Amino acid sequence: MELWYTEEHSPNTRFSIKVKKQLFSEQSPFQRVDVFEAEEFGRFLTLDGLMMVTEKDEFIYHDMIVHVPMATNPDIKNVLVIGAGDGGTVRELTRYETIEKIDMVEIDEMVVDVSRKYLQKTACSLDDKRVTLFFEDGLKFVRDKVECYDLIIVDSTDPVGPGEGLFTKEFYGNCYKALSQNGIMVNQHECPYYEAFAHSMKRAHKRISELFPIVKVYQAHIPTYPSGHWLFGFASKTLDPVKDFKKEQWESLNLTTRYYNTELHTGCFAIPNYVKTLLAEARNE
Amino acid sequence: MELWYTEEHSPNTRFSIKVKKQLFSEQSPFQRVDVFEAEEFGRFLTLDGLMMVTEKDEFIYHDMIVHVPMATNPDIKNVLVIGAGDGGTVRELTRYETIEKIDMVEIDEMVVDVSRKYLQKTACSLDDKRVTLFFEDGLKFVRDKVECYDLIIVDSTDPVGPGEGLFTKEFYGNCYKALSQNGIMVNQHECPYYEAFAHSMKRAHKRISELFPIVKVYQAHIPTYPSGHWLFGFASKTLDPVKDFKKEQWESLNLTTRYYNTELHTGCFAIPNYVKTLLAEARNE
Repeated sequence: MELWYTEEHSPNTRFSIKVKKQLFSEQSPFQRVDVFEAEEFGRFLTLDGLMMVTEKDEFIYHDMIVHVPMATNPDIKNVLVIGAGDGGTVRELTRYETIEKIDMVEIDEMVVDVSRKYLQKTACSLDDKRVTLFFEDGLKFVRDKVECYDLIIVDSTDPVGPGEGLFTKEFYGNCYKALSQNGIMVNQHECPYYEAFAHSMKRAHKRISELFPIVKVYQAHIPTYPSGHWLFGFASKTLDPVKDFKKEQWESLNLTTRYYNTELHTGCFAIPNYVKTLLAEARNE
Repeated sequence: MELWYTEEHSPNTRFSIKVKKQLFSEQSPFQRVDVFEAEEFGRFLTLDGLMMVTEKDEFIYHDMIVHVPMATNPDIKNVLVIGAGDGGTVRELTRYETIEKIDMVEIDEMVVDVSRKYLQKTACSLDDKRVTLFFEDGLKFVRDKVECYDLIIVDSTDPVGPGEGLFTKEFYGNCYKALSQNGIMVNQHECPYYEAFAHSMKRAHKRISELFPIVKVYQAHIPTYPSGHWLFGFASKTLDPVKDFKKEQWESLNLTTRYYNTELHTGCFAIPNYVKTLLAEARNE
């Protein structure tokens, strides 16, 4: 018998992973939650049939969503994480002893429960004493927050289903308000290669560009995400991720990372011309 | 009816593209040659069931295999291209008016014939008067060449079948000998993410490192290649692609490129830690 997990990356493209067995499958109030075990990728979590994390390559996503802002401002003390129910983002954040508080807002408690049970490699730091979990809608959570976070990480699903509100102008505006004077917002920013994702990417970039004075996009190679070419958005009130990069300070922390390094910190902001063109189109729309 | 082209990227991973129709399928003396037409990717060429070029993303591969060495040494005049039957590498090279001679050695004439007929977007410059086509084994072709090329581009298939000889120490040694004093060799260098490809990558890197004083690896996002994380090898006798980069000189040429740009020139050499580790392992084996 062969069991294959298949995901449509575009209406004309499919990516399939050979599965040993399905470990979990349930419909939460928000989405379908599945966990699989695979020979090559270890365990992996999907939401509504879209890949969230595999044990084989989750380090790439979590390195890039956490260490890029942290190396731009190693003085970050208060962090808000929105989404990220698998715990991988919090795991990387808790490695910084200087961080004092991490609020994590995940709309779907089932994702956290399932990750604690099946994905210990990512969920292992959710009980860190600096972490407070809120099972709420991130969109509502940030509404009344004012200048209280140094970093907001938007580790959301795609802008369909429960993640939709996390791509709105209202949400980005509230994030701006919730950020402290040198605040940084980083968000998962879709892929530039397939049309539907590129559309979401452009919409997010346009809205963020209208609110933040410093707005950049950086990239990583994430093989299990559509096209393998994944983008992150970096938006901030004062700090430029390349000009204000605290290379030596970050290196002195001696954190071991499997993907991120200080050359890549600068390198990942060098994006291809076709992506630059799409982003410029978005800003001028 | 639905028709899907499917490729195994690893024993546990499949990538599939929806196809409108198959345009060509024949066994050459060397390999099976297929051309398909797809809604999203335009026409695409496969050899022995492995993706070579799609009209949607071939610009990425060809930008990166040509413009990185040319921007390191814009004085390159004599070029040897090995493989590259689709013509895309030659197309990018012929955009440099300063190049005087391009010898292209493709073992399989059928690939060139089929590309001329079905892939005019890549094969369009094969009749440039500076280009000479040789339908020979590249391994044999370079054996008696001494210091006559400023650039050798090894645009080969994977090291199985007809491409195998182009990953041997003998071949790399002959390329070294065939290169002029400031000579550069660039080769497609496989992907670091899936085991079989990573194995080929390490073997190639080890062999090249034993021969050339300057050896670097750079990367690009190529969505239709396994994992989307594709590597290129840069080896040279004297020139460092980052330190000796002729940024202003290249920019003054005013070449329009859809992927490559001068920020990316430096950025693409910033590779993730896990890839650095694999390459260091190879050098120490």
